[in-house]
Amino acid sequence: MTTYNRLSGTNVRRIEALSDALYAIALTLTVLEVRVPSRQMTMTEGELRAAVFQLGPRVLTYLLSFMTLGIFWVGNQTFLSHVRRSNRHLTWLVLANLAVIALMPISTGLLANYLTYRTALILYWLNIFVAGLISLAAVLYAERAGLVEGGIGEKASAALKRRLVIGQALYAFGAALCVIHPYWSIAFIFIVQAYFAFAPQLPPRVRGINSPLGPA
Amino acid sequence: MTTYNRLSGTNVRRIEALSDALYAIALTLTVLEVRVPSRQMTMTEGELRAAVFQLGPRVLTYLLSFMTLGIFWVGNQTFLSHVRRSNRHLTWLVLANLAVIALMPISTGLLANYLTYRTALILYWLNIFVAGLISLAAVLYAERAGLVEGGIGEKASAALKRRLVIGQALYAFGAALCVIHPYWSIAFIFIVQAYFAFAPQLPPRVRGINSPLGPA
Amino acid sequence: MTTYNRLSGTNVRRIEALSDALYAIALTLTVLEVRVPSRQMTMTEGELRAAVFQLGPRVLTYLLSFMTLGIFWVGNQTFLSHVRRSNRHLTWLVLANLAVIALMPISTGLLANYLTYRTALILYWLNIFVAGLISLAAVLYAERAGLVEGGIGEKASAALKRRLVIGQALYAFGAALCVIHPYWSIAFIFIVQAYFAFAPQLPPRVRGINSPLGPA
Amino acid sequence: MTTYNRLSGTNVRRIEALSDALYAIALTLTVLEVRVPSRQMTMTEGELRAAVFQLGPRVLTYLLSFMTLGIFWVGNQTFLSHVRRSNRHLTWLVLANLAVIALMPISTGLLANYLTYRTALILYWLNIFVAGLISLAAVLYAERAGLVEGGIGEKASAALKRRLVIGQALYAFGAALCVIHPYWSIAFIFIVQAYFAFAPQLPPRVRGINSPLGPA
Repeated sequence: MTTYNRLSGTNVRRIEALSDALYAIALTLTVLEVRVPSRQMTMTEGELRAAVFQLGPRVLTYLLSFMTLGIFWVGNQTFLSHVRRSNRHLTWLVLANLAVIALMPISTGLLANYLTYRTALILYWLNIFVAGLISLAAVLYAERAGLVEGGIGEKASAALKRRLVIGQALYAFGAALCVIHPYWSIAFIFIVQAYFAFAPQLPPRVRGINSPLGPA
Repeated sequence: MTTYNRLSGTNVRRIEALSDALYAIALTLTVLEVRVPSRQMTMTEGELRAAVFQLGPRVLTYLLSFMTLGIFWVGNQTFLSHVRRSNRHLTWLVLANLAVIALMPISTGLLANYLTYRTALILYWLNIFVAGLISLAAVLYAERAGLVEGGIGEKASAALKRRLVIGQALYAFGAALCVIHPYWSIAFIFIVQAYFAFAPQLPPRVRGINSPLGPA
Repeated sequence: MTTYNRLSGTNVRRIEALSDALYAIALTLTVLEVRVPSRQMTMTEGELRAAVFQLGPRVLTYLLSFMTLGIFWVGNQTFLSHVRRSNRHLTWLVLANLAVIALMPISTGLLANYLTYRTALILYWLNIFVAGLISLAAVLYAERAGLVEGGIGEKASAALKRRLVIGQALYAFGAALCVIHPYWSIAFIFIVQAYFAFAPQLPPRVRGINSPLGPA
Repeated sequence: MTTYNRLSGTNVRRIEALSDALYAIALTLTVLEVRVPSRQMTMTEGELRAAVFQLGPRVLTYLLSFMTLGIFWVGNQTFLSHVRRSNRHLTWLVLANLAVIALMPISTGLLANYLTYRTALILYWLNIFVAGLISLAAVLYAERAGLVEGGIGEKASAALKRRLVIGQALYAFGAALCVIHPYWSIAFIFIVQAYFAFAPQLPPRVRGINSPLGPA
C-alpha cells in the first residue's frame, strides 16, 4: 500500500465524532416535516386540535425513524468501542454506512406516506438491508485486518455479527410477508425493531419460549 | 441477558457526543423560522423596520425554546457527568429523551403562535412533562443498576431527582392555571424556567422566603 | 447555593462540544440560501452563467458570515481552553452567547440584502455588540469566580478582554459611520474583521504605524 | 505577534470537533433534496415506482457529493492527527477550507443538474481546486511553523502533499478534457475519486502498470 493510504483514516475518535454528528442530523431530519399549523387557517380551539391530530402520522414516522436509526447507532457505537485503531478501508466502510444511514429518514417517510404500497415497503427494507450488509462487511473486515481489540472486543464482534445476521434474516422474512399484505410486513418489522431497541428482560419462563427469536 | 445486549451501549462519551449534536440542532431549529424579509416587498427604511419588528415574536419564541432546551441540556450534562458507564437500557432511555427533546422547538413554536389556545399550552406542557418523566426514569434506572459513580455522583443524582420532581410539580401547577387563562400558565411557567436557568443568588432574606420554591 | 445548582454545568468538555456543533450549524446556515438555479428556467450556457453570477452576493454573504462567526468561534475556543472547570452560571453565559451567535447568519443576511439601509446595519452591529458583551461578561465572571486556570490562563483571559474591548470600540465607531453612509460602516467593519481574522504579520515598520489598531 | 494572536486557536481537538460537525452537515446537505413524492400526485404502485425512479439522479448526486466530501474529510483527519498543536494562522486556514468544503454540495448539485454544461463542470472543478489549494497551504504552513509532530507526522505530511499535488493535477487534466465534452471530464474525475476513495489493492502485476497513477 502507498504511504498516504497506509497513514490515512486511522483515527477512530474522529470516525466516532463524524458518526455522532451525522446520526444526530439523520435523527432530526424527519422532525423538520412536523410543522406548526399556519395561523391563517386555524381559528378555533377545535380547528387547532384537528390540525394537531393531522400531525400525528408525521410524529409517528419521526419516532419510527428515530427507533430504527437508534438501533444502528447503538451498533455503530458498540462496534467502534472495540476497534483498537482504524485504517482507510475501515474508514470508508463506515462512511459508506453513514451514506446509507442518512437515507433512512427518507425511506421511513416514504413508508409512512405509502403504508399500503409494496414499492415503499421494499425500499424501506432495502435501505435497512444495505445498511446491515455494510455493517457486517465492516465487522468482518475489521476482524480480518486485526483492527479489533482482543478479549472483550472479539466477543463484541462475534455478538454483533450474530445480531446482524439474525436481524437481517428477520427483516427479510418481514419484507417477504408483503406477498400477503404490506401491513403484515410493517407489523412484523416493527415488533422486531421494538424488541431490538428495548430488549425487554422477560421473566425466565417467557424467555425460554422466546429464545429462538432473541438470542442476539 | 444475551451477549450483544450486555456489550452494547456502554460508551458514555458517545451518548454525550450524540446528545450535544442533537441539542445543537434542536437549539437552532427555531432560528430557521426567522427569515430575512424578502427584497421585493420592502422598499423603504420604514418598511424594513416594520418587517423586522414583525420578526419579533419569532425571535422571542427562539429565545424561549433556547432557554427550555438549555435547562434540559444542563440536566443531561449533569447526569451523564456522574455516570460511570452506561448499558443498553440507559442508552435507550437517553435516546427516548432526545426524541422528545427534538420535538420541543415544535411545541414551543405552537405555543408562540397560539398563545391564547389551551390546546397549544397543554401540548407544550405535555412535551416538558414527558421529557421530565423520561429524565427521571433514566436517573432512577441508573441508580438502581449501579451505573452512577459513588460519592458526588450519588449527591448529584439525588439533587437531579429532587429538581425534576419539584420542577415537574411547578410546571403541572402552571399548566393547571390555564383553567383561568392560558396567559397565567405561560407567565408562571416562564418565571419558573427563568428561575431555573439563571438561578439568581438572592440575598439571604429573600432566599428564606423563597426557599419552598428554590431548594432544587 | 442549592445542591443541584452547585453540581450542575461543571463539564467544560460538554460546553465545548455543544459550542462546536452549534457553530458548525451557524456557519452553514447561510449556505442553505445558495441554491442551484432551477432546470426549468436555464437552457443555455449563457443563461446558466448569468444564473450563477446572480448567486454571487449570497456566496459573499456566506463568506462574510463565516468570517464573523469564525472570529467568535476562535474566541470561544481560546476562552474555554483556559477554563479549569465550569459552573452553572458560566454555562448559562456561554449558552446565552450561543443563542446570540445563532442569530448572526440572519443579521448578516439582512445586511447583505439591504446594504444601503441603516436599519440593517444597526441590527448587524447590535448582534455583534451583544455577542461581544456576553463574551466579556463570561470572561469577567470566570475570572472573578476563580474558574480560569493560573499562569497562561490569566494571560489569555486578559488578552481576550483587551481584544473584546478594542474590537467592540472599533465596531461601534464603524456603526457610527453610518451617519455619513452605511457603505462607510460596512467597509470599516469589514476591514476590522479581516484584520482580526487573518492577523497579518506586517513588517515591523508598518506594524509601528499600525499599532493603535492592532494591539489585541 | 500580540498576546491574543499568540494564545488563540491552539486547540487541535476543537478544530477537529468543528470539522466533524461541519462535514456531517455538508455530507447530509444534498440528502435534503431527495424528497418523498407528494401523496396527491401518486395514486398507484406504478406511479409511485415512477416517482421514486425520478429521485434516482438526486440520490446519485448525493452519493457523488458524499464521496468527494469523504475524500477531503479523510485528508482533514489524517492531517490534524499529526499536528501537535495549532496556532491562529493554521486555525484560519482550516476554517477557510471548511468554508469552501460547505460549498461542495452546491457545486456537486449544479454539476448533477447540468451534466452537459461546461460552466457547471468548471465551477465543480474550481471548488475542488480551491479546497485542495487551501489544504496544501495548510500542510505547508504547518510544516514551516513546526506544528507537525516529528517522525510519522512528517511522513504523513509528505504523503499528504504528494497526494494533493497528484490529485489536483489529475483533476485539472480531467477538467481540461471538457474541451472535448463535459462527459469526458466527469467520467475521468469520477474514476480518480473512486480510486482515491476505495484505494483498491490491485494485484502486483496490475499495480505495476498502474503505478504512475496511484503513488500517493
